[in-house]
Amino acid sequence: MTAYPDSLSRLVESLKRLPGIGTKTAERLAFHLIKLSDEDAMDLARAIRDVKQNLTKCSVCFNFTERDPCPICADAQRDKSIVCVVEQPKDLMAFEKAGAFKGVYHCLLGHIALLEGIGPEDLTIDALIKRARQGGIREIILATNPDLEGEGTAVYLRDALAEVAKQKGIRLTRIARGVPAGAEIENVSSAILSDALSGRQTFGG
Amino acid sequence: MTAYPDSLSRLVESLKRLPGIGTKTAERLAFHLIKLSDEDAMDLARAIRDVKQNLTKCSVCFNFTERDPCPICADAQRDKSIVCVVEQPKDLMAFEKAGAFKGVYHCLLGHIALLEGIGPEDLTIDALIKRARQGGIREIILATNPDLEGEGTAVYLRDALAEVAKQKGIRLTRIARGVPAGAEIENVSSAILSDALSGRQTFGG
Repeated sequence: MTAYPDSLSRLVESLKRLPGIGTKTAERLAFHLIKLSDEDAMDLARAIRDVKQNLTKCSVCFNFTERDPCPICADAQRDKSIVCVVEQPKDLMAFEKAGAFKGVYHCLLGHIALLEGIGPEDLTIDALIKRARQGGIREIILATNPDLEGEGTAVYLRDALAEVAKQKGIRLTRIARGVPAGAEIENVSSAILSDALSGRQTFGG
Repeated sequence: MTAYPDSLSRLVESLKRLPGIGTKTAERLAFHLIKLSDEDAMDLARAIRDVKQNLTKCSVCFNFTERDPCPICADAQRDKSIVCVVEQPKDLMAFEKAGAFKGVYHCLLGHIALLEGIGPEDLTIDALIKRARQGGIREIILATNPDLEGEGTAVYLRDALAEVAKQKGIRLTRIARGVPAGAEIENVSSAILSDALSGRQTFGG
């Protein structure tokens, strides 16, 4: 067996260090990278370097940012009294893209997954409780994912925030589960339909 | 809508220039890259730069290589009289991993796909005919993919090589199509089973 050329093996090995990227995907990506124009490849190499050098975490909400606090936390137009708690900065960005939320965020930087060794202490839960204690918050929306770990994390947060919420009069809420917009009822799972039924709301009348 | 931090947008844009990578995948990759250790990220940036700077194409077989001719073409142990024609260097590497071939290769660097504007002149077919004319070759194995474009390219090559093959006494062959090793007959497609039947060979007796 003839090995890859040195620089190609090194690229494949480097790509394999990305989470969730196995040998096959790394090889596929490497062949894509070889086909990029020199300029595009250098741009990418530079972009990777820049993102590591410039990107830091907001000391308030733990979103990725180049300035601290991040533009959202620093924005006087945003309603600081409503905090939407998400697992990851990419969830925050999904909410921002939707454009439906004018409050601020708190990124947990993960979810509780005891089997994977991720406990509450590995997340930014202490910082969230501290934020709540400082006052000025009237609602905390728990927007962790609607899956096993996300629900578990939401339940943990509900309990962990109960005391400060009571003291400070903070309302704890959870994002709605139901049929996704645009879906066809006949094609969604029974778990989704159960959610949609149990979460039904008064409509007209 | 709040945009991504600058360096993150630039990374996503850079990743989107990779063939077959859309916005969603680019964002997913970018978030993976952010999570890499500084060292691993710098290694990757360097590996991308190196691969573009060091990797060139073998002037004989068009495989990726850091030296010209490539280690396979330069290897005195390889049988230069049998040339296996593949679409891409990654196909060559798949054959090398299998370790079943001791001849040399010719990478077409694609397949004929007229609808995508890829004609025979965009491949290394002229170089292959030239190689054949120089003599010393007794067999050319057409190992393009067993799909529409690959078969079409094989048929084109058969015709394009017919004259020189006759002159020089070169045998043109095509890799076998059939049931893949390890497959369960009940699960393979009827196209595969048809191939397996029409390609059947005498067995024992």
